[in-house]
Amino acid sequence: MKRVITDPSSFPAFTAALAQLNITAGHPDINTQKILAEISLAKKRKVDVIVFPEMAVPGYLLGDEWENDSFVRDIESFNDEICKASTGITVVWGSLFADWNQKGEDGRVRKYNAAYVAQNGRYVSNGAFSGHTFKTLMPKYREFDDERHFYSMLKYAHQSGKNLRQLLLPFPIDINGKTLEVGVMLCEDMWSDDYQDNPLEVLVKNGAQVIINISSSPWTWRKNDKRHRVAQSLLAKYPVPMIYCNNVGTQNNGKNIFLFDGNSTVYNADGSIRAVAKDYSEETFDVVMRDSAMHSDEVITLSQSKDIEELYNGLIYGLRVFFEKLPTQKVVIGLSGGIDSAVSAALLVKALGPENVFAINMPTEYNSSLTRGAASELAHNLKIHYGIFPIQRSVDQTISELKGFSFERGYERTTLEMSPLVMENIQARDRGSRVLAGIAASLGAVFTNNGNKTETALGYATLYGDVNGAIAPLADLYKGQIYQLAQYLNQHCVDNAIPSSILTMVPSAELSKDQDIEKGKGDPINYPYHDRLLQAFIEWRRDPEYILDMYRTGTLESEFSLEVGYIEKFFPTAQDFISDLERMWKLYKINYFKRIQAPPIIAVSKRAFGFDLREAQNGVYFTKKYLKIKKDVLHA
Amino acid sequence: MKRVITDPSSFPAFTAALAQLNITAGHPDINTQKILAEISLAKKRKVDVIVFPEMAVPGYLLGDEWENDSFVRDIESFNDEICKASTGITVVWGSLFADWNQKGEDGRVRKYNAAYVAQNGRYVSNGAFSGHTFKTLMPKYREFDDERHFYSMLKYAHQSGKNLRQLLLPFPIDINGKTLEVGVMLCEDMWSDDYQDNPLEVLVKNGAQVIINISSSPWTWRKNDKRHRVAQSLLAKYPVPMIYCNNVGTQNNGKNIFLFDGNSTVYNADGSIRAVAKDYSEETFDVVMRDSAMHSDEVITLSQSKDIEELYNGLIYGLRVFFEKLPTQKVVIGLSGGIDSAVSAALLVKALGPENVFAINMPTEYNSSLTRGAASELAHNLKIHYGIFPIQRSVDQTISELKGFSFERGYERTTLEMSPLVMENIQARDRGSRVLAGIAASLGAVFTNNGNKTETALGYATLYGDVNGAIAPLADLYKGQIYQLAQYLNQHCVDNAIPSSILTMVPSAELSKDQDIEKGKGDPINYPYHDRLLQAFIEWRRDPEYILDMYRTGTLESEFSLEVGYIEKFFPTAQDFISDLERMWKLYKINYFKRIQAPPIIAVSKRAFGFDLREAQNGVYFTKKYLKIKKDVLHA
Repeated sequence: MKRVITDPSSFPAFTAALAQLNITAGHPDINTQKILAEISLAKKRKVDVIVFPEMAVPGYLLGDEWENDSFVRDIESFNDEICKASTGITVVWGSLFADWNQKGEDGRVRKYNAAYVAQNGRYVSNGAFSGHTFKTLMPKYREFDDERHFYSMLKYAHQSGKNLRQLLLPFPIDINGKTLEVGVMLCEDMWSDDYQDNPLEVLVKNGAQVIINISSSPWTWRKNDKRHRVAQSLLAKYPVPMIYCNNVGTQNNGKNIFLFDGNSTVYNADGSIRAVAKDYSEETFDVVMRDSAMHSDEVITLSQSKDIEELYNGLIYGLRVFFEKLPTQKVVIGLSGGIDSAVSAALLVKALGPENVFAINMPTEYNSSLTRGAASELAHNLKIHYGIFPIQRSVDQTISELKGFSFERGYERTTLEMSPLVMENIQARDRGSRVLAGIAASLGAVFTNNGNKTETALGYATLYGDVNGAIAPLADLYKGQIYQLAQYLNQHCVDNAIPSSILTMVPSAELSKDQDIEKGKGDPINYPYHDRLLQAFIEWRRDPEYILDMYRTGTLESEFSLEVGYIEKFFPTAQDFISDLERMWKLYKINYFKRIQAPPIIAVSKRAFGFDLREAQNGVYFTKKYLKIKKDVLHA
Repeated sequence: MKRVITDPSSFPAFTAALAQLNITAGHPDINTQKILAEISLAKKRKVDVIVFPEMAVPGYLLGDEWENDSFVRDIESFNDEICKASTGITVVWGSLFADWNQKGEDGRVRKYNAAYVAQNGRYVSNGAFSGHTFKTLMPKYREFDDERHFYSMLKYAHQSGKNLRQLLLPFPIDINGKTLEVGVMLCEDMWSDDYQDNPLEVLVKNGAQVIINISSSPWTWRKNDKRHRVAQSLLAKYPVPMIYCNNVGTQNNGKNIFLFDGNSTVYNADGSIRAVAKDYSEETFDVVMRDSAMHSDEVITLSQSKDIEELYNGLIYGLRVFFEKLPTQKVVIGLSGGIDSAVSAALLVKALGPENVFAINMPTEYNSSLTRGAASELAHNLKIHYGIFPIQRSVDQTISELKGFSFERGYERTTLEMSPLVMENIQARDRGSRVLAGIAASLGAVFTNNGNKTETALGYATLYGDVNGAIAPLADLYKGQIYQLAQYLNQHCVDNAIPSSILTMVPSAELSKDQDIEKGKGDPINYPYHDRLLQAFIEWRRDPEYILDMYRTGTLESEFSLEVGYIEKFFPTAQDFISDLERMWKLYKINYFKRIQAPPIIAVSKRAFGFDLREAQNGVYFTKKYLKIKKDVLHA
């Protein structure tokens, strides 16, 4: 196989602008206005090529709105507006392409996730297509659904009897009378490791002198490093300068809110990073590309934040954009005096300002003075609105009414039985559906769900109680990560506003005497171990067979980064370990019914509950091999 | 293109058994037990070939459980058990095939939706594959997600450099020393109209003498007729006998419960229907196939139910199976005295028996004696448990507590304002989250959501109030369809148990004086028109541009099957029509936030809210052309 390495010194110098826009999904009018304004500004700066992200016109996450033909024609008319505006400049942008003469595999009009190229008011032909090219690799894991909505370049090749080599051609762009061969591809096209084809390879072999990758790539905590590695490994084989343009903003599919961090990057031909745009910043930057190297007019250094800071920035941005799209900036939050609501409140303060945060403590007889004091102290420290709304009387009245109620059926009479768990859940629902919902409605505000991922996984929350809320900012973070975030907040953002008692007390729901925090009685969860276990179930896609096998072979603690002896300390016998493992697997599986009715989660991990991790109410299953290992372990 | 028509008279006579099993998704142990038992029985009946549905071993709707490698290996071991059991018989079944040496496009082990063929304890080779073949056409519309989880035969062809003609080969089955060429395909492979390839054509051209299509095909109201038409149109071109085997049961993806009706069918080579299994019935039937015709040992006539009966059967089946999988058969239902809860209660009685249904009327001062009387009469007629739980005092107390509450922030004090809407919603939440949830928990039961599709679309329900419930049996039916179902129930199922007052009164939420049913003040919805409008939005995938264009051109009434003059009667001016249209579009789009937190819906229509219709919280958008038509219409 002959490798055609483009000589970078042969292409004409040009200035590229990367327009890292905040794209509003489902509003091509707003997006096109921004695009046209950026084109106009770029012309004044004498930019040669301006690049916009994937699906910059319609947005990327639209549910099934692609099936609305009027909307599709509307997008087309905006594409034409952009093309017309390309006088004296080259514009590369992402949008929908519809072929009204062909059917997609859903029987509707055939649609493509396309990149458009226009110069001087006309679409530029690359020999295969006039002014556009199609996405070749279609992501369909996690939250991605490209195969559902769009026909791929591969399917186009199959139906037209051509191969990718004939279809993935660079666009010849005129730069002051000289031709620049620009290879254009879309997002997943550079993540080709798991696919049969490598679009970048094809484009380079077809003579592309520079690659433009337009993306709409949701952020995942600690993902950017991986993108750089992927780009560098590609460019090591096919050295060519690459412009990667990603959007900022948030987009959602209901159950999940995804953050788009931008991080648009210019890579040199050797894969080194020339320039990176700031996280979550709507900005356009110009890069002059001439001879073999690239020179940025305005040198942009690596500004990526690291680890917890990156997480913090993402959450703040997600909250801010979520509320910007609401008619209100006011938010109500229940403050229990525990860690989750404390972190949630601190984030809301940073995202919306303390004047918009209304906190309520809703004690019963089971709430300790420790947590009540902590809630009050936190509110005071954060300078937010605060009120105490005791619910004991209302809970008592509900219990008494329920106890006095009976059904009749002919001569048959049925009275109700109130177990302790039933009474605990009455408290939670009184808080979530009576007080918080009532107060938020009265204020014209919304209220948050403060649950973490550990509890969301295990269903350690009450449906129509603490499962409620308009948004769940923390539900993609395990309990241990909440503590890390709390410490980061105290140190860097809110000046130790979270009282130390909240950081040190044992986590507890405080719904009964058995959960007396002052006696150290907390949640029935061993967070350091169970966080890891759930992460294995959810993010690693493992099951009890895998876990028990690690336990049997003695590799569990090292795999889970736990100290030696940790497991045995909590689970003295194999039977203890297995009982807990099975209980956790069952809780995780069975409690999906609560997640079905849970609010939108800001996705930060590699696998968020909701549309990212698809589940079904199929009960609990243990593999044959699990049952075999269990037998072996118990009889060892 | 040469058409090779197989001469049906040339194949050896054989007996085929169609095993229309109730498949339990996610439980290969249970399913394999059933499969092995059926094989054993079939051998005794001297059956030559027994056919099981698509994904008969693992089930079809499993969320992302396919990503659990232990589970995949577990499925493989069950496949081998079935193969071993094929001594003296040929078994065709659907299951997963994993290629551990290859990656899928998600970077995980490559998996296929496969059909297996085994005879005499060994996998049968067709020259291309040893004992299995892959699904070629991958549905990814509506609730389908095949591309997400499985590698297709088309992708296999692409990566192996082969074409379908080389890969879709019939399996040579030994029938008493003679060879029968059996073409095996999966579900969507016969729905090839919208795809580039036609697997049946390829199989027939490759010499298939009989086609076996194994399916796991969810039911949609009025879909079976379409399947017969599709099959007949295929067989008209490629005349070959076809065995279509589908499962029964329900499977879900959380937000939707799908009904699998079976309706396994044997088609003669001319497309005529030879035999059909009963709807929702777990049954196995044998068909003797010899010479040019087919003879059923036990002649099975067309037993399909029609229209409302079909709908009724589906809903009853869905409810019954849903409750069978719960630890309880008891259900609590709020009876308002309106039509939705009446129909829901009647269905529950038919599905679970009156002894399991616990109905509660929860009146406030706004509930009329008309509806209160109707609720009581209905409960009496249905012979269900009944109780009255007045909520006025609790609602008053909540309102008074909220009015007395204030937030403090330094010297700033914020008191709450209670609008009439806020007070209405307090009633709804008191019913849904305090009373119904409390009573259901005390009884160890679940409670239903009684909302219909019209209200679900418009958000005409209160979150944490009447949006609550464990299952929403009616949320895929428009209000008009609920009335049709009520009449059917009264005539055929519950002996006029639904009082005529419920059928004739104006629908109303009865949450305020403005909704006084006795003064004829009902919901702000014109059901005959708005049902159609919402159906256009949801099922036809249309938007206001399309609707307004019909209004302008005078085709709206005929398209909506409304009498001439109906629109003008309710909307005297174009402005009236447009205001309503925009209001409805906004309500439909904005109120998605409630659907995110709504319970599972039994899917019956061509597009159910949930996982079937994917949505995003993207606000409201009107196309440019809509705005243009609006201007034209208003200035006409």
